[in-house]
Amino acid sequence: MLGVGISLDGYIARPDGAVDFLFMPKDYSMGPFFKRIDAAVMGRKSYEMGLKLGGGKLSSYGMKCYVFSKTLGSVAHEDFAIVSEPPRPFIEALKKKKGKDIWLMGGGELTRAFLQDDLVDELYLGVVPTLIGEGIPAFPSGFPQREFTLVENKTYSMGLIALRYKRRIGKKRKR
Amino acid sequence: MLGVGISLDGYIARPDGAVDFLFMPKDYSMGPFFKRIDAAVMGRKSYEMGLKLGGGKLSSYGMKCYVFSKTLGSVAHEDFAIVSEPPRPFIEALKKKKGKDIWLMGGGELTRAFLQDDLVDELYLGVVPTLIGEGIPAFPSGFPQREFTLVENKTYSMGLIALRYKRRIGKKRKR
Repeated sequence: MLGVGISLDGYIARPDGAVDFLFMPKDYSMGPFFKRIDAAVMGRKSYEMGLKLGGGKLSSYGMKCYVFSKTLGSVAHEDFAIVSEPPRPFIEALKKKKGKDIWLMGGGELTRAFLQDDLVDELYLGVVPTLIGEGIPAFPSGFPQREFTLVENKTYSMGLIALRYKRRIGKKRKR
Repeated sequence: MLGVGISLDGYIARPDGAVDFLFMPKDYSMGPFFKRIDAAVMGRKSYEMGLKLGGGKLSSYGMKCYVFSKTLGSVAHEDFAIVSEPPRPFIEALKKKKGKDIWLMGGGELTRAFLQDDLVDELYLGVVPTLIGEGIPAFPSGFPQREFTLVENKTYSMGLIALRYKRRIGKKRKR
């Protein structure tokens, strides 16, 4: 499941990685989302950005975290592992193991690779009412068209909208 | 008011201008939108794309249509006029005239120019549940951050969501 907060113009972060434009209204909870997952996958740049923003620390929040990278050798924290193989064989093997759902945290380049390989089954998007004008896109161009079915569309305070989609294959849209 | 249909990854059209991924569900009507406007502004590329897709014809649907272009000399249809001046003075003058609201149809480059000049007061977005992977962005990067207030978020059949935002200046968000 891809789970990201985005600006109204589709960015997950400013060009320098800052996410100050995102916010969490009081009436919104990520609890239901976190209950469904026990593993997270992220790209190398997102991992390094997270480390930098955390002053060298990055919490796994109790999840098993996988960092896709062909260049990183190892990471310090025991809950983090480096994945040097391509997404598809790794994810297919991980899905066969006993466990909960897998959170694709991004960033954009890993999301593109996952969409190329059609590994994104669900989208969890939180959209804030701000056009930031430039940044790191949630869905960088360069993958085949992928259809989804809208499962949930909720409005929260401060103008946050929470959207949930499931991958739709083959079947025609219900009018 | 910027009024556009977009893919879930924020494109108003495919790279060649095709908008086959957009759809209009039976329970959705653009009537309330069209009731509010009597003029439309568009960029030169959108105008030419519209002409091409229409086989050389383009209807104004009874609106006064303005095409922003520094290169086009004139257009055949009497409801269409070429605007060679920059957006701000033209729009400020048009807003002073008696009339209804003005529809900013796009495309992306004109939208960016309008956002740079802070001429977008409202957003009307119809979002289809499809990631198309590449295309012409609704909000191409290169304008200052602009805050909006969510006014309406409605779900229609086939997974279309209709969003309405108003430009928010100064005031803090209501939690």
